[in-house]
Amino acid sequence: MVGKSVHGQWQQVEEDIAGDILTGRLSPKTQLPKEADLMERFGVGRHTIRRAISNLESRGLVQVEQGRGTFVREGRLDYRLSERTRFSQNLLEQGREPLGQAVREELIAAPSVVAEALRLPQGEPVYHIVRRGFADDEPINFSNAFYPVRRFPGFDDARRSGRSISVIFAEYGVPDYIRLRTDIIVRMPTAEEARQLDQAMSLPVIALKKVDVDMKGTPIAYSETIWPGERVQFSIDNTSQLLDALARNQEF
Amino acid sequence: MVGKSVHGQWQQVEEDIAGDILTGRLSPKTQLPKEADLMERFGVGRHTIRRAISNLESRGLVQVEQGRGTFVREGRLDYRLSERTRFSQNLLEQGREPLGQAVREELIAAPSVVAEALRLPQGEPVYHIVRRGFADDEPINFSNAFYPVRRFPGFDDARRSGRSISVIFAEYGVPDYIRLRTDIIVRMPTAEEARQLDQAMSLPVIALKKVDVDMKGTPIAYSETIWPGERVQFSIDNTSQLLDALARNQEF
Repeated sequence: MVGKSVHGQWQQVEEDIAGDILTGRLSPKTQLPKEADLMERFGVGRHTIRRAISNLESRGLVQVEQGRGTFVREGRLDYRLSERTRFSQNLLEQGREPLGQAVREELIAAPSVVAEALRLPQGEPVYHIVRRGFADDEPINFSNAFYPVRRFPGFDDARRSGRSISVIFAEYGVPDYIRLRTDIIVRMPTAEEARQLDQAMSLPVIALKKVDVDMKGTPIAYSETIWPGERVQFSIDNTSQLLDALARNQEF
Repeated sequence: MVGKSVHGQWQQVEEDIAGDILTGRLSPKTQLPKEADLMERFGVGRHTIRRAISNLESRGLVQVEQGRGTFVREGRLDYRLSERTRFSQNLLEQGREPLGQAVREELIAAPSVVAEALRLPQGEPVYHIVRRGFADDEPINFSNAFYPVRRFPGFDDARRSGRSISVIFAEYGVPDYIRLRTDIIVRMPTAEEARQLDQAMSLPVIALKKVDVDMKGTPIAYSETIWPGERVQFSIDNTSQLLDALARNQEF
């Protein structure tokens, strides 16, 4: 019975604080009251408060910063998926500061999934970039991207000399590109994904698998980007398709 | 140490069978070997096999049918999200048999989220339909949909006389409609959602919030549809946008 009662207690504390965060009474970046104050407010022990806070952290609602205190995390990032989705622009439009960080880059033989997506023979050389994306210093995605080296010879040299992907594309006559297909899959994270995203292994991630094509429809990039399920939402806006439909209706 | 060793054992059994399913060696609808045969194959006890099977069921990979046995579930449904997404057509294209089942229908005052999405004053009458969708007799989604009654007077009478939504729309001069916006959110299910989807509470669901508009851009439906995270993937195909871009390029 004691065990059951303690169980109920931390759940109550967790749900009360979660409610304050989800309804906006506690706004992003606010510091939670100190442990002693929470113990007094809820009339429970230190262990109960710690368990509730630990669960709130697993759910992505608060962030414990050692030595500083516990802070309310930003709300879900609203990430627009469109044929011209660009990470930096998307974040800036929501007042979030974007940052990309290359974790690892290498020249490899295309694995079968990558070869199929890029319409290459299996084993063709591809340039592989592992990246982390940040929103206001918080890790928000983790990606593996692959580029066909035969289409872009010297891709690795260009990267070593510090050029960005879009600059390299432009040098090879691809000033613009379009997202042809996106697959959205929800699953549990691998240990590395959880670590890179600074989230619990018990929380789901969203994997976006994407193929980019040049303006002739030839694949020039394939990537898998992992997002923390609790810290982002995706949106699809079909306003332009509606406007096209309106225009067609008026022609008749 | 005993606890740890048992832990390792059921995980090994679970991963072996999961591997057989995910690589296709065990195909959908196949019956798993009987408990006694699995005990012999893996050299473990009944408790270990049961725990592994229970986890495979939680992950949505197998379905235990009391008295009949344990069967491999269908692979992920690939559900296309487009401005003209229709449930039945989508499933039929993948050789899955679609079925919709109304759970509950009622006339209510619009809650604030619904009023905002339909651009109505809060409290306006809306017709609320709770539905389950099935693919080959397996529950695949659970939705709450809302329709503005002032735009479609007599919506409830029309429903009571058995008319479908698209027939009602057509009767009120809306022969066609378009999906204007879709929000995609991953979260844990409520108890009712888990029950309706026949899945574990510990597995994530995907919530799609959608606004449909008539061909003048006026909202005519708002819905939230919950999908089991492990049994579906969504895809966005921008081929038509690519073709538009190609056509524009050739004009210059």
